[in-house]
Amino acid sequence: MPTRSTIMDTNSFRAEHADALDDVTRELTAKREALLGASYRLFYRNPVHVVRGQGAYLWDASGRKYLDVYNNVPSVGHAHPAVVAAVSAQMATLNTHTRYLHGSVLAYAEDLLSTLPGELDQIMFMCTGSEANDLAIRVARAYTGGTGIILTSEAYHGNTELTSAHSPALGSSQPLDPAARLVSPPDGYRADWAADGSVGQWFAARVQEQIDAMREQGVPFAGLLIDSVFSSDGVFTGEPGMLAPAFDVVHRNGGVVIADEVQPGFARTGDAFWGFGRHGVVPDIVTMGKPMGAGMPISGMAAKREVLEAFSLKVPYFNTFGGNPVSIAAAQAVLDTIRGEALQERARTVGAELRASLTALADRFDVIGDVRGAGQFTGLELVTSRSTKQPATALALDVIEGMRERGVLTSVAGPSGNILKLRPTLAFQSGDIDWLMESLTDALVQALETRP
Amino acid sequence: MPTRSTIMDTNSFRAEHADALDDVTRELTAKREALLGASYRLFYRNPVHVVRGQGAYLWDASGRKYLDVYNNVPSVGHAHPAVVAAVSAQMATLNTHTRYLHGSVLAYAEDLLSTLPGELDQIMFMCTGSEANDLAIRVARAYTGGTGIILTSEAYHGNTELTSAHSPALGSSQPLDPAARLVSPPDGYRADWAADGSVGQWFAARVQEQIDAMREQGVPFAGLLIDSVFSSDGVFTGEPGMLAPAFDVVHRNGGVVIADEVQPGFARTGDAFWGFGRHGVVPDIVTMGKPMGAGMPISGMAAKREVLEAFSLKVPYFNTFGGNPVSIAAAQAVLDTIRGEALQERARTVGAELRASLTALADRFDVIGDVRGAGQFTGLELVTSRSTKQPATALALDVIEGMRERGVLTSVAGPSGNILKLRPTLAFQSGDIDWLMESLTDALVQALETRP
Ligand SMILES: Cc1ncc(COP(=O)(O)O)c(C=O)c1O
Ligand SMILES: Cc1ncc(COP(=O)(O)O)c(C=O)c1O
Repeated sequence: MPTRSTIMDTNSFRAEHADALDDVTRELTAKREALLGASYRLFYRNPVHVVRGQGAYLWDASGRKYLDVYNNVPSVGHAHPAVVAAVSAQMATLNTHTRYLHGSVLAYAEDLLSTLPGELDQIMFMCTGSEANDLAIRVARAYTGGTGIILTSEAYHGNTELTSAHSPALGSSQPLDPAARLVSPPDGYRADWAADGSVGQWFAARVQEQIDAMREQGVPFAGLLIDSVFSSDGVFTGEPGMLAPAFDVVHRNGGVVIADEVQPGFARTGDAFWGFGRHGVVPDIVTMGKPMGAGMPISGMAAKREVLEAFSLKVPYFNTFGGNPVSIAAAQAVLDTIRGEALQERARTVGAELRASLTALADRFDVIGDVRGAGQFTGLELVTSRSTKQPATALALDVIEGMRERGVLTSVAGPSGNILKLRPTLAFQSGDIDWLMESLTDALVQALETRP
Repeated sequence: MPTRSTIMDTNSFRAEHADALDDVTRELTAKREALLGASYRLFYRNPVHVVRGQGAYLWDASGRKYLDVYNNVPSVGHAHPAVVAAVSAQMATLNTHTRYLHGSVLAYAEDLLSTLPGELDQIMFMCTGSEANDLAIRVARAYTGGTGIILTSEAYHGNTELTSAHSPALGSSQPLDPAARLVSPPDGYRADWAADGSVGQWFAARVQEQIDAMREQGVPFAGLLIDSVFSSDGVFTGEPGMLAPAFDVVHRNGGVVIADEVQPGFARTGDAFWGFGRHGVVPDIVTMGKPMGAGMPISGMAAKREVLEAFSLKVPYFNTFGGNPVSIAAAQAVLDTIRGEALQERARTVGAELRASLTALADRFDVIGDVRGAGQFTGLELVTSRSTKQPATALALDVIEGMRERGVLTSVAGPSGNILKLRPTLAFQSGDIDWLMESLTDALVQALETRP
């Protein structure tokens, strides 16, 4: 989810630049507004009209090729043949709900649970990340008897009423849940953590403060819900172990931790299969989605049995499409492909190589404030100058527009929208780094010339 | 969604009958309980282990063929080749989110909106019926400024926190939204409607009562949310026009009507493409799901532009998988197939033929209290005797178990679980009626012998 600043700015820019669009783009854009309404937002002043994808690339209607550095759903690569074959075969055979017995959902459940810490021993399937988080919040509340959930200040967790009320990224027109409390993310670049010893200790202290505030205000504490790489807060992967103190604080206070792995999950962070894996911690509930079925709408919620049962022995839950054989076939093919092509290892090495190039580029540009990340999840923070660290919001927007003109698709994150979120498919290889670096360098040069 | 009575009873029956299961069934059942947890419920004392589907039929692992009289998702028929081909081709080409331009989502939006009254001129796509209703409730509240939603007493509208709180069918362990109010469905068989002139007038009066009660209690009225055939209340299709008085009452009181078309939509009721279509009414919001993509998780929410804008100009909404090219390809293939194979007309004629056979059967069995429905959505109400109308709950369960043993799959609905819900795929033909009638007759005879 891009931050609100991006969404709004990109849209108003397009209205201003409508004259510059070609006829088909203008027609499709107008049709979208008429038929789909105001919630449908497009990326870029000059939107991309995509027609084909393969591996790390997309092609537009004119045949132009793009490097996709943003799309974390087709994580194994666009139109991966193993996924296409698995889905096609299963669709031609059977697709039905989980009220009958079917073997593949059980084989996949077993396989997927084997990637998680042993304590997380049950899994349920739904269709979207929002559904997974909606259920996770309900389970956390049922288990703890509390209502209060702690969130990071720019978090996005979903589009349902409950998850939207736990998504401060949506802005002030979407009221937060009255029991929700916000903490700053573990921002190693900006947070004043020295006195606490480490960013992780600093973050844990912030969590403890909110638990204490809840107690004073009579709100019973339920837990901490975090994206384990803080994607929309600005990509804070941190040092291994960073999250351990906060997990301890939550557990000492009787709460549960929900790790939202919708963005970092499925090998993206390279060092581990799950985003929390780098920190040696065990969440009580793990939610997952986006890359899970390579575009097939499938999501999941894994939990400790005892936590889940507090809900599931009481309240009925049924999801019509959740865990159907076709979605499961896609998910199994994704899991097999991640292993078969060693995509976790590739994410680790190619991501590190990319960050080395970006760090080298920082020698040339004082506006590059920070380069951080893990595996194929990189945050590149742009500032007006390294000494003031003032967010360079307008510059970041110019840069992503400039990269788009050079065929490289990416976007921004963070409360000020000044952090480039470089999050390619895991099909991205070393050989793709040059195109990315060239487009970034040229876009930076051009943007700094026009906006000094 | 089967009623809670069914779910619970079927599960406890299985525990009692575990000895009678074959080894594979017992193993798969145990594995489900271990890996997937308590929310996963199976149909039947002896669950069906499905491996293949085609048209109106399913096959189990032993090669046995079943007639599917319950599955409304693969409405164009299991594994329909047009859907398989469309999905396979699109998957091999491109699958991505709606932040880029893509033509097919717009072509489909236009096509789908053409099946709805002209006032409903905008459509948004999500992945599940629950997501569609969750958003619909939020939109209704934003537009009216109210919070109170009126629901029928056994309604099911979804599994998210918000929709579960608007689903009395889930039972007392799931608290209702404090602003929600219940009305009895327009039950022409049981309601005492004579004094009101018609079931429709009777139902409208019940809705008005709840609006008045809300007003007294200081709850601002937002609208009426109904499944237009009242599937889980017990299938009340009613006479054409039945819903008009209630729609009038809602509109006169400043509320909106949300028609939940997740079950009746997409030609099932035969006389019309949408369930509300038989009644000459125009809802303000229409939600849809299940049959929309023949198993591909896609759902939609259509609304009057002015109603939708009250929400969408204010609150951001993004659904990662919603409206992606693969889901749209499935949905377009479904729409084309419904038209190309004239499935609406088939639903009308074959459904009428089936109800004629069931009505004839009622001459033989005093326990058949009522036969009702429209198109391929039939309710067969079982009672202990026609004079008392007492619900024959245990008998109904025995009958669906007996039909399952004879290869015909169906289930029950209604607060007492005594109403057989006969809801085959639209691939069901005249020639399938015999198997259904024979299995029903034999199961009734056997059940009445063992449970006099
Ligand atoms: C961290 C995170 N959680 C949850 C979601 C919601 O996922 P979905 O759009 O599939 O409902 C998103 C989607 O952007 C996300 O980024
Ligand atoms: C009338 C009705 N509305 C909504 C839903 C929820 O749909 P889903 O399971 O796709 O979320 C259902 C599902 O059973 C339904 O029957």
